[in-house]
Amino acid sequence: MSDKKRIYFSREEMFEMNRDRLLERGVTIEDIAIIAFRQQGKYNPDISLATCIESVEKILSYRDIFHIVQLGIEIDRLTEEGVFRSPIQDIMRADLGMFGIDEILGLNIASMYGVIGQTNFGDIDVNKPGIVKKLNDDGKGKQCHTFLDDIVGALAAAASTRVAQIMSEDEAKRDPHYTPIKLDLKD
Amino acid sequence: MSDKKRIYFSREEMFEMNRDRLLERGVTIEDIAIIAFRQQGKYNPDISLATCIESVEKILSYRDIFHIVQLGIEIDRLTEEGVFRSPIQDIMRADLGMFGIDEILGLNIASMYGVIGQTNFGDIDVNKPGIVKKLNDDGKGKQCHTFLDDIVGALAAAASTRVAQIMSEDEAKRDPHYTPIKLDLKD
Amino acid sequence: MSDKKRIYFSREEMFEMNRDRLLERGVTIEDIAIIAFRQQGKYNPDISLATCIESVEKILSYRDIFHIVQLGIEIDRLTEEGVFRSPIQDIMRADLGMFGIDEILGLNIASMYGVIGQTNFGDIDVNKPGIVKKLNDDGKGKQCHTFLDDIVGALAAAASTRVAQIMSEDEAKRDPHYTPIKLDLKD
Amino acid sequence: MSDKKRIYFSREEMFEMNRDRLLERGVTIEDIAIIAFRQQGKYNPDISLATCIESVEKILSYRDIFHIVQLGIEIDRLTEEGVFRSPIQDIMRADLGMFGIDEILGLNIASMYGVIGQTNFGDIDVNKPGIVKKLNDDGKGKQCHTFLDDIVGALAAAASTRVAQIMSEDEAKRDPHYTPIKLDLKD
Repeated sequence: MSDKKRIYFSREEMFEMNRDRLLERGVTIEDIAIIAFRQQGKYNPDISLATCIESVEKILSYRDIFHIVQLGIEIDRLTEEGVFRSPIQDIMRADLGMFGIDEILGLNIASMYGVIGQTNFGDIDVNKPGIVKKLNDDGKGKQCHTFLDDIVGALAAAASTRVAQIMSEDEAKRDPHYTPIKLDLKD
Repeated sequence: MSDKKRIYFSREEMFEMNRDRLLERGVTIEDIAIIAFRQQGKYNPDISLATCIESVEKILSYRDIFHIVQLGIEIDRLTEEGVFRSPIQDIMRADLGMFGIDEILGLNIASMYGVIGQTNFGDIDVNKPGIVKKLNDDGKGKQCHTFLDDIVGALAAAASTRVAQIMSEDEAKRDPHYTPIKLDLKD
Repeated sequence: MSDKKRIYFSREEMFEMNRDRLLERGVTIEDIAIIAFRQQGKYNPDISLATCIESVEKILSYRDIFHIVQLGIEIDRLTEEGVFRSPIQDIMRADLGMFGIDEILGLNIASMYGVIGQTNFGDIDVNKPGIVKKLNDDGKGKQCHTFLDDIVGALAAAASTRVAQIMSEDEAKRDPHYTPIKLDLKD
Repeated sequence: MSDKKRIYFSREEMFEMNRDRLLERGVTIEDIAIIAFRQQGKYNPDISLATCIESVEKILSYRDIFHIVQLGIEIDRLTEEGVFRSPIQDIMRADLGMFGIDEILGLNIASMYGVIGQTNFGDIDVNKPGIVKKLNDDGKGKQCHTFLDDIVGALAAAASTRVAQIMSEDEAKRDPHYTPIKLDLKD
């Protein structure tokens, strides 16, 4: 079990903490991967759900995304408990349409995969497939998912875009003029 | 006719120059307004096309948007003429999926109306309704609309969001506790 | 006194609530205006502090900015009270450099005034003048200003950029070819 | 020499094409690295110029950055040749302060390294050190560097942030509770 005062974590620890917090709030990695699978499936019929699951897991291990998932879920939980003061407590409890901080964080997650990630997030945020719709609906009752539905939609968009990039790079490599990297440019 | 060396323009002049350049490339204000009308119509059945047209006109008069419309259309035109050097000439002529500068400028137009504008742009950019699809298709032939289809989609998203904000503000004003502005806070 | 369940507010009410929350946390409107004054003063020696104060007040009345100021201050306060769970509680209490959600919200405030607003925010966030430095230093003790120092820096950047835009528009109007707006394009 | 119709390139090819175009416009990799070195040197006295040079080279090999460097330089060159039509030709030739598309592209490069990259870009864009100032000054004569000074500033900001991240991760690894990655999470 992690020491409470720690602020630095390994990639694996961040993945595990994110997976556990999401499960606590009713979201599985597969829920997220299915949205990515359906979004990319429109362009890439050869896509597999396993590749999407792998992308979601990779994305959940990044620090910037770890911070947003951890904080967003805590804000939703504390809103359910009524801990914030008015007026922001009531604005978040009501999931006010004009309140955009949840989308700001969602767009930031998606922007890890560039502008294509951001437009993919827009598509998911507007059309609300699968688990995004469920969270949005459940948030009208006792639960509060003001931040989580956007965060989950963004994780799906990021995974969708990551899969598309991997498949494009593979296609690029089949170009007869493509030359492999000679310099040491490992990330 | 405007003096060629001028770099400052009035809001009306910028609107007119944008309208004319768009017409030159086969796009009318109504083409753009129809996309906004259909996107917002899913949430606001009372919306009118006239309100959407008015929003498109307003948006076309802003300086930041004027610069993007003017430059984006010129880049497309010069790409048709083969003026850029390789490799960027070929990348833009092919409207490469992985080339994202067109979406960067589109997202920037849409961000004038906040994160909601950006997610609305994502929806339009992924699903390509109306004139956006037509430009995208025409761009596969002799014409080049690498930038224009994203710019037009973003103008539609911005107009859609502007209309939504106006309708929300009207709804807010009907709240019995709403008090009118007493200080001079005119923009 | 406002009804606790309200979620829509007038521009004047949002300005007042923001002013009051900032005072509660030790920040005056003048503290913010002074930073804008010094940043713009490098380009516009004719600038007045009164114009900067007026710009800060205007900016504090916008809904998107109201939401960020209200939520950011509440997050800092609840972090002081130790209400969040680990690890995010400890990350925010330590104002970890790699935690960027505070800058994300700051950049969003500044982006209301375009990319120039964002680069002005970058300058303030890196160089930490006046009240920004004070908050950053005080946050190392019992107080927590993880979000507030970025929010205040962003408000200053936005005000600085707004003043610059007003002064540029005035300069543009002096161009002999500038024609006044004939259509009704009032915001 | 590359085949003119190619649109996909290896990481090494993109690095070389970027390095060559920058040299063509009077900018060396070291010019850029020096700015990163000085910006990070304020926080990390142990930083080396070699690490900064290595970071600039890495950043110049990414596709999204490749597209912006290639297009930005072409736009500047064609502006020098007077190829664009008015009014955008005159606006870019004059490097109008209110024209922000150059900063939009710069911010996009910097955002590859998150919000910290963006604020570092703001600092460089406002304060204009080294080669950024030189390009900005030279652009007032026959040369046009409307886009290049922002692109170069952003490359420096990205490199500066990348170096900071590498040094932070090293610091994190020295935490006695840090556990190495067990799963296969290679990028």
